Amino acid sequence: MTSSTPLPAHHHWVIALVCVDQPGIVHAVSGAIVQAHGNITESQQFTSADTGRFFMRLQIESPASREELTAALAPVAERYAMVSVIDVVGRPLRTLVLASTAGNCVNDLLFRHRGGQVPIEIPLVLSNHGTLRDLVGFYGVPFESLPITDAASKAAFEARVIEAIEDNDIELVVLARYMQILSPELCAVLEGRAINIHHSFLPGFKGANPYKQAHARGVKLIGATAHFVTSDLDEGPIIEQNVVRVDHSRTPAELVAIGQDEESRTLTQAVTWFAEHRVLLDGARTIIFK
Amino acid sequence: MTSSTPLPAHHHWVIALVCVDQPGIVHAVSGAIVQAHGNITESQQFTSADTGRFFMRLQIESPASREELTAALAPVAERYAMVSVIDVVGRPLRTLVLASTAGNCVNDLLFRHRGGQVPIEIPLVLSNHGTLRDLVGFYGVPFESLPITDAASKAAFEARVIEAIEDNDIELVVLARYMQILSPELCAVLEGRAINIHHSFLPGFKGANPYKQAHARGVKLIGATAHFVTSDLDEGPIIEQNVVRVDHSRTPAELVAIGQDEESRTLTQAVTWFAEHRVLLDGARTIIFK
Amino acid sequence: MTSSTPLPAHHHWVIALVCVDQPGIVHAVSGAIVQAHGNITESQQFTSADTGRFFMRLQIESPASREELTAALAPVAERYAMVSVIDVVGRPLRTLVLASTAGNCVNDLLFRHRGGQVPIEIPLVLSNHGTLRDLVGFYGVPFESLPITDAASKAAFEARVIEAIEDNDIELVVLARYMQILSPELCAVLEGRAINIHHSFLPGFKGANPYKQAHARGVKLIGATAHFVTSDLDEGPIIEQNVVRVDHSRTPAELVAIGQDEESRTLTQAVTWFAEHRVLLDGARTIIFK
Amino acid sequence: MTSSTPLPAHHHWVIALVCVDQPGIVHAVSGAIVQAHGNITESQQFTSADTGRFFMRLQIESPASREELTAALAPVAERYAMVSVIDVVGRPLRTLVLASTAGNCVNDLLFRHRGGQVPIEIPLVLSNHGTLRDLVGFYGVPFESLPITDAASKAAFEARVIEAIEDNDIELVVLARYMQILSPELCAVLEGRAINIHHSFLPGFKGANPYKQAHARGVKLIGATAHFVTSDLDEGPIIEQNVVRVDHSRTPAELVAIGQDEESRTLTQAVTWFAEHRVLLDGARTIIFK
Repeated sequence: MTSSTPLPAHHHWVIALVCVDQPGIVHAVSGAIVQAHGNITESQQFTSADTGRFFMRLQIESPASREELTAALAPVAERYAMVSVIDVVGRPLRTLVLASTAGNCVNDLLFRHRGGQVPIEIPLVLSNHGTLRDLVGFYGVPFESLPITDAASKAAFEARVIEAIEDNDIELVVLARYMQILSPELCAVLEGRAINIHHSFLPGFKGANPYKQAHARGVKLIGATAHFVTSDLDEGPIIEQNVVRVDHSRTPAELVAIGQDEESRTLTQAVTWFAEHRVLLDGARTIIFK
Repeated sequence: MTSSTPLPAHHHWVIALVCVDQPGIVHAVSGAIVQAHGNITESQQFTSADTGRFFMRLQIESPASREELTAALAPVAERYAMVSVIDVVGRPLRTLVLASTAGNCVNDLLFRHRGGQVPIEIPLVLSNHGTLRDLVGFYGVPFESLPITDAASKAAFEARVIEAIEDNDIELVVLARYMQILSPELCAVLEGRAINIHHSFLPGFKGANPYKQAHARGVKLIGATAHFVTSDLDEGPIIEQNVVRVDHSRTPAELVAIGQDEESRTLTQAVTWFAEHRVLLDGARTIIFK
Repeated sequence: MTSSTPLPAHHHWVIALVCVDQPGIVHAVSGAIVQAHGNITESQQFTSADTGRFFMRLQIESPASREELTAALAPVAERYAMVSVIDVVGRPLRTLVLASTAGNCVNDLLFRHRGGQVPIEIPLVLSNHGTLRDLVGFYGVPFESLPITDAASKAAFEARVIEAIEDNDIELVVLARYMQILSPELCAVLEGRAINIHHSFLPGFKGANPYKQAHARGVKLIGATAHFVTSDLDEGPIIEQNVVRVDHSRTPAELVAIGQDEESRTLTQAVTWFAEHRVLLDGARTIIFK
Repeated sequence: MTSSTPLPAHHHWVIALVCVDQPGIVHAVSGAIVQAHGNITESQQFTSADTGRFFMRLQIESPASREELTAALAPVAERYAMVSVIDVVGRPLRTLVLASTAGNCVNDLLFRHRGGQVPIEIPLVLSNHGTLRDLVGFYGVPFESLPITDAASKAAFEARVIEAIEDNDIELVVLARYMQILSPELCAVLEGRAINIHHSFLPGFKGANPYKQAHARGVKLIGATAHFVTSDLDEGPIIEQNVVRVDHSRTPAELVAIGQDEESRTLTQAVTWFAEHRVLLDGARTIIFK
């Protein structure tokens, strides 16, 4: 959280925490909240049968400062070896957007962001092409393009990504149809804080031009998957998926257009949930507290 | 809860509670659960901005008996003036089904019940026609029919409903296309424990033969609403709704068939949630802890 | 169709026709197409059991000019007393957009239009507020605002609408959250060529602030209906409907945001189908040849 | 078609045909229909850009007998080298159901069949287990079980399948969770007239226990695909697909239950369309004239 964010008189906090499951956690956490004169307005929890971990997301109203709230929770966090986040509800997450030439995901994200539906702020859209300069500029968001033509320019682009993350206190990187494979080094840097989008089909198709393959097989549903970036391409933990029905009359080009719509809304949804601290990781799975 | 239900060695309990919202409730409730050596495995809560009420549903694992658990919670319930339910997870709710001649909802409910998806037990299906005798019998469920032809026979039918409720410790009454308007007296008796199903359209249609009206207007979506029975016909608190897409080529008869499918799955879903204590009332609204 | 539209060497035509149903129509129409050396690439038909009318939409490839094609079809059209349209596939329909302050529907329409998904051209967006000037301008579309504050200024606005229709050869008027009730005179002028969008609920709600009412009743689905404008407010023939699932935790403000999304995509869909001559009227119903 | 089916005074016919696309087909076909004093009540066509083939499905009302209609169409069929089917609308297709122990698909098919929604007749359900004997018997359908325990008993089962097809003039074989891999020989015999159902995920999973894998990856959508049986396991032309949303809280067992529901409704839908001659093959794709 940036220290300059002004707080309301009565603070509205979000708390997300993960630890090994055992009896008494809720009692301990809610005790700390009582101590901070907090009132729980939203609470969700889940215990993973796979990993034995306990996940919790709370929203509370409390007159406490960040320091007071952190202090109240500290003994509990220590006792249960919790990983926890404390944030102000609605604080815009500092987000770097990586793009290429396709505008659908970027436009959907920026339009809904401007409409107040996506609690992020975007210090920069960084692209390997200049195509989207005007679109991004219309929304008053800084735009920068750096061509990628070979290994050296790709390394330069990724160096600029890391620099932009540091310069802008970036908390989330969104790959909005960035279309480039990230280096393993950058994947490692971004672990757990970068979201990608890709098309999805039943059944899945490997290799080039999947929409053409989907057309050739006559699939009846096409969709999109938003997932965390990992070094295993397109195999990171899934955050959200959507599909839409198609029929035999659709050309491959129409399938692409339909798929892009699904990609846009799926990516924007995933970013929104992440920015609201609703996405928690449980190994290869996500816990989504909608 | 019937006292004869055998309990597992380690009990799995569901607790649902409602009270006026104020700080400290979660801490107090979780403290009682710690006292009963319980571990919370599922928890959902909601504070209604409309009524200021707090709703909570918990599932816990605890070695405590019902008496021990009730005793542990009693001081909390008293302090916060809670309305609460304590039950064994998965205990089949004793359910009376009222039907008429249409078999779709009854068959869907009985088939899924037999498949273990609906935690109810059905001591009786009561109908004003004999049409469904064989279908109900196939599932091994008792069936009884009493004709309704005038005010007197209707009063006799409703008297039999009340008698059946008492004789069988009925906790839920399901109107599975019963098609009769209940008397205000019976509505009052059933308040908060009877679920009805009816067709739904965009826009709504008043009067006779709504599917014909829907056809005449060329609606593109038809659906179903499951709701609590109140004396205000078809206006009780909504539990679940579904719709399905239709087009101009559908005849009124086809709209009816499609609508019946939606009614079946919507009613079965609502019954399942109610039986799992996931449906709580907040005035004219329902809180559904899925 | 504007005479300046350049035609491809091999023309791709759309033909839509309506007449009283009787044997031999398809044979007669396809004979005229054979005469025009045409090949049918898409064909849909429907006979209304309600009105006895026959509806057909064809796409054909033919080297014939408009005059040759019209001449080939003329004897058939006369013999069966057909109402018919002949147009070039993909020709952008000249569309006037009426708006107010809400930007969601306008942005969705303009963005998808720019992406080539909506075959229209927009000579003007006319609004009773200046709010959307920058948004519309970004897409390079002319924008004009005229305040409506009383009966006189409303009449002036409507006079400007009629003038703009005439000056720009307008074929379709889209009410993209225009929010004003049209006068009966304007409704009459626009009959069959103006599309409106409004929110939709199960059940329907009359009166002010329907989202607040929907919240109060705890509806589980909210949606939108795109329909033709008639003098009977919100009761014109339905073109398209969509719904989305909501739950008890949604505030009235969130319901509004969700509803606006449904409105946007539903309106854009209806406009696209209309521009492709896929929407035919059968009394109070629409036949949609998707 | 079985000769014993009584025809209505005024026949309602369905005609499905496939040939290489060229100008004049619709005119020629509709001319033959005029000659048979027929009136077209439903018509759909599609030209495949992939294979250059033309597909058409018609429903007509005509006083002609089958012989007269066939004679009228014969010159057209010959001229365009058509593959065609002529059938009475609604004639129940003779269908053999293969099952194993799972009852969901069989029950859905039999219940909807009894309700008049699926135009088939089922002379036999053949299973490798006796589990479903009572369920099938309840619907008045013959049931037979033959255990499969080794290669010899599997060959005997398949021989019985072929015998049952011949003895009962079977036109469609439905694998309603039959769970056995068919021999290449049987696949060849059944080509184009056997429908299978299997679960589907985004992304797809290979190998055993896919629901467990889907759980481990935390998929948000699970579904089902109905497809033609080919010797390439689970890779035959797709007829219908459905998905349903799931979240992190679902156990693998719950995913199985949800998946079975999708399988049931997807299979029944595919069977219905096939029985209505709405499913045509275009290489590896299906054309579905809904």
